[in-house]
Amino acid sequence: MPHVSICVRNPPPVFASDVMHNVTAVKGDDIEFRCRVMERGRHMVAFIRAEEPPRLISFDDRIFRQRDKYEILSRKGHDEWILKVKNVQESDIGGYICQINSNPVLTKTAFLDLKS
Amino acid sequence: MPHVSICVRNPPPVFASDVMHNVTAVKGDDIEFRCRVMERGRHMVAFIRAEEPPRLISFDDRIFRQRDKYEILSRKGHDEWILKVKNVQESDIGGYICQINSNPVLTKTAFLDLKS
Repeated sequence: MPHVSICVRNPPPVFASDVMHNVTAVKGDDIEFRCRVMERGRHMVAFIRAEEPPRLISFDDRIFRQRDKYEILSRKGHDEWILKVKNVQESDIGGYICQINSNPVLTKTAFLDLKS
Repeated sequence: MPHVSICVRNPPPVFASDVMHNVTAVKGDDIEFRCRVMERGRHMVAFIRAEEPPRLISFDDRIFRQRDKYEILSRKGHDEWILKVKNVQESDIGGYICQINSNPVLTKTAFLDLKS
């Protein structure tokens, strides 16, 4: 009998169609950026502030810095990652990146602005 | 007897003077970016590719992606973090950021180029 090996590859992760919407907030609000990934598998998620230089916010569910400003919530069996930005101020205006450690890397940016 | 409380604050971390040198490599080489922090305390270190958009390389000693390309070495009681970039190719040319999760954040960028 011949030796048969079956190779099953997981499909690569893709962003859900409705991820990382731009947000216009009232000063003092808490807001959320939602990053939902299909076929997430065992991939990890990072959030990064899109600045010059960029600033890491979180890696998986661990906040890198400013624990009073940011929180990571995960839902639906970890297919959705939510970055909560608390007490939004002028200094929070700008781009927020959701990044998945797939190959090639998946990256989606949304913007936070304040109601004038 | 009065109640006396003594508050000891650790000094904030600072980069050592000789960190994150620019590197000019021969194609195929392995190279290192050295990021040394004084008064590191319990702060964490991240490495980021300075691109548009930026790409997370590592968080503490965990590689985010491209495990065959990157390695994190730590030395001297974890005061020095070394990002090893293996088998350098044209696609590796660019900026590499060492970032410490202090308040304010500490960020230092070095550049990798190829010998022409």
